[in-house]
Amino acid sequence: MAENFRYQQLTQQLQQLLAQGHWQPAERLPSVRALCKQYQLSLATVQHALHQLEALGLVEARARSGYYVRQPLSAVATTKPESAPASPAPVTVPELFVDIMNRSAAFDIQPKGPVVNLPHLTLLHRLLSRTLRQHGSRYALHYDEPTGLPALREQLSLHYRHYGLALKEDQFCITAGCQHALFLALQAVCQPGDIVAVEHPAFYGVLQLLQQLQLQVLEIPTQQDGLDTAALQQALSRWQVKACVVTPAYATPTGACMSPAKQQHLLALAAQYDLAVIEDDIYGDLGFYQRPSPLKSLDTEQRVILCSSFSKALSRDLRIGWIAAGRWHDKVARLKLVSQLAGSQSVQQALALFLAQGHYKRHLQHYRNQLQHQRDQLLNALQLYWPEARYTVPQGGLALWLELPGKPNCTEAYTHCLQQGIVLTPGELFSSSGQFQHFLRLSFTNPMVGSRLTALQTLARLLRNKH
Amino acid sequence: MAENFRYQQLTQQLQQLLAQGHWQPAERLPSVRALCKQYQLSLATVQHALHQLEALGLVEARARSGYYVRQPLSAVATTKPESAPASPAPVTVPELFVDIMNRSAAFDIQPKGPVVNLPHLTLLHRLLSRTLRQHGSRYALHYDEPTGLPALREQLSLHYRHYGLALKEDQFCITAGCQHALFLALQAVCQPGDIVAVEHPAFYGVLQLLQQLQLQVLEIPTQQDGLDTAALQQALSRWQVKACVVTPAYATPTGACMSPAKQQHLLALAAQYDLAVIEDDIYGDLGFYQRPSPLKSLDTEQRVILCSSFSKALSRDLRIGWIAAGRWHDKVARLKLVSQLAGSQSVQQALALFLAQGHYKRHLQHYRNQLQHQRDQLLNALQLYWPEARYTVPQGGLALWLELPGKPNCTEAYTHCLQQGIVLTPGELFSSSGQFQHFLRLSFTNPMVGSRLTALQTLARLLRNKH
Repeated sequence: MAENFRYQQLTQQLQQLLAQGHWQPAERLPSVRALCKQYQLSLATVQHALHQLEALGLVEARARSGYYVRQPLSAVATTKPESAPASPAPVTVPELFVDIMNRSAAFDIQPKGPVVNLPHLTLLHRLLSRTLRQHGSRYALHYDEPTGLPALREQLSLHYRHYGLALKEDQFCITAGCQHALFLALQAVCQPGDIVAVEHPAFYGVLQLLQQLQLQVLEIPTQQDGLDTAALQQALSRWQVKACVVTPAYATPTGACMSPAKQQHLLALAAQYDLAVIEDDIYGDLGFYQRPSPLKSLDTEQRVILCSSFSKALSRDLRIGWIAAGRWHDKVARLKLVSQLAGSQSVQQALALFLAQGHYKRHLQHYRNQLQHQRDQLLNALQLYWPEARYTVPQGGLALWLELPGKPNCTEAYTHCLQQGIVLTPGELFSSSGQFQHFLRLSFTNPMVGSRLTALQTLARLLRNKH
Repeated sequence: MAENFRYQQLTQQLQQLLAQGHWQPAERLPSVRALCKQYQLSLATVQHALHQLEALGLVEARARSGYYVRQPLSAVATTKPESAPASPAPVTVPELFVDIMNRSAAFDIQPKGPVVNLPHLTLLHRLLSRTLRQHGSRYALHYDEPTGLPALREQLSLHYRHYGLALKEDQFCITAGCQHALFLALQAVCQPGDIVAVEHPAFYGVLQLLQQLQLQVLEIPTQQDGLDTAALQQALSRWQVKACVVTPAYATPTGACMSPAKQQHLLALAAQYDLAVIEDDIYGDLGFYQRPSPLKSLDTEQRVILCSSFSKALSRDLRIGWIAAGRWHDKVARLKLVSQLAGSQSVQQALALFLAQGHYKRHLQHYRNQLQHQRDQLLNALQLYWPEARYTVPQGGLALWLELPGKPNCTEAYTHCLQQGIVLTPGELFSSSGQFQHFLRLSFTNPMVGSRLTALQTLARLLRNKH
């Protein structure tokens, strides 16, 4: 048991160092002997940990030479500056999107596969049932305030304070989820025809919104450390951009995080070019090793609009998100009121209790470990069934980004896979440019075991035969 | 007991005949003797019933002459054709609106007053708790279909079938309430600058939406039997109108219902002028004597967009509404997906069970009686405390429309009343024209007893002193 614990601990430590870039890709790790000495561990323990890292695809053993940092798929490799669209354009999104949403909006390759056990839900649902018993009659007859239940906004304020972001409860507005928050943000800031800069690859929900609101998209290359702010700067000098949408923490699909230097640069550019910065923080609470401070914590000009929700960290069934819209707060609150009227007070109250009683914090500790474990299951499966693929190794969030050799067209494979009961999320959804056709996003929201593991194996085989 | 039952039954019968226009305003009712003979009841029973109708303000006794139908406030008296704005204009809504919403979006004069007992809620909440226990884990990880849970859409289809509207489950899209449905409808049909015809007076939520979506409003006079379609015809021949928003059943604020003839005329005009007709059916289930067929049941061209929700009939806390958008169905579903992503599956599932098990139907039977009782409480209170005011006597819905003699400015009185803990709903909210300043909407959602009754008395006194 002790040995078991020690090798797991070492695996964790080395994994964290790798994540932090302590060693460069292709760099040789310290020798087994050196690691034994450094960590005061036995040869067997160190070797066990290194085998584990190898199984995760994080390092590779070279005969008679040692362990080398495996070159993960970085956004650099996939999105060279020249590959991003050079000028703003109206958005077109494949019709496929609606079909996928109809089947499984969680983008799970096997929507009927085993479901992760979420013990915190029992507790949350108990709080909800109690709230309904206690306040149901009054809530049934009165709508909440336009900005949402004060008790919940207070808890959000306290939550963010732990991570370096000081906002008062009246700076938040509760929404019906993060997508709704993004919608309100874009609607408040932009007029039809305006140009909005996004990451490349970007979250498909944002691209859909731009299309709906008749906005033009400008896709800015994104690397492992986030949006290429130098490329953004070039674009800003050339085009009149109204807003920039970024996901600084564990962006979907790549899982990339934005470096502090780039965050500072982005805000300086925003000030210079009078830009609204829309921050999608939905994965912020799902970092395995840390909870990054939101970009908004650096915002001295009230021009960062923070958008998030409980959908990813807690439950997609709650339909509760929030927006801290800075200088656009009043406009956003009015928009929400007019387009939606109200939110569920009982759900907000139950969530406020769940946070106030410390359950959310405890849940996150547990859930982050679970997600990391599921990511490792996925990495193991990929090493085993899809060794020729390249993929990012996210340090948080819910998905990784996979590049397929031989460049099969994943969009075309979608229907064929569906006949096998497999829902794939084609890379093409993440750009308006038609690029990323040989990319996939793979989710580790659910355990990669049982029928889901079989589905992955089948998927690898199907796509291998495609080229 | 038997006597008690008989006079109540007669009161009901006479009330229904009055509502159906069996006698004209100012017409003399049959004599007490004639009524005794007709209904085979004792003198005491008939007199008891007539006193009851008098207390409700529905008839008035004239000495030595008998009982006369009291002239209720009809929309005719308040909205003469010439009083409605003559040409389309951008909407301006008083800022006051947001302030009211912040205090009590249910527009209750005494938001902290006694709350009506809603026994059905216990049952609904139990179904919800059970659903969460059974399906919570899966719902937490997957979003629902873009158009909402099939089981609920199926129940809606069955529900409307009882009232002459045959729609399949796939013709509905679940929304986050009726306001959200109206938002989706207008967004799907109109472009900024388009002209939308509305009732005069209109639901403030629609006016807010038009302002938000930068649409122009054209207010069409409305009488006791609904929108003046002759006036609409004149307007259509002059202006290019894109859509018309109507509430054919128990419209807020007047409680008016649209006559079948006017409904047919409206649809003929819609066909001739290629109009979208947006039907707000939110009060349809709350008719005291009948459940009117929705306007959409006459729609042969898929140009009526039915919008409704469970907020008024069941609970404002559910945030579940629906839209049946006819030819705009796909567009609306896409819009919902992009702006909101999903709805709560557990709440939808609990509602589907609530309807399927017959609880909704039973609840409505009970709730309609309760609302009628509360309306009568309000009418009694008005007779007592505000005899000089004129008001509509709605046969369903949740509110009546009150005209004040001496024309005090209710909008100006708002703040003063608030200091007394009274929230009034000024008539000015129901038009973009600045008219209806000496009107109020009064809700009978809650019992007019205790502190709410005192508030009404105070309100009458305050406004009496205003002129």
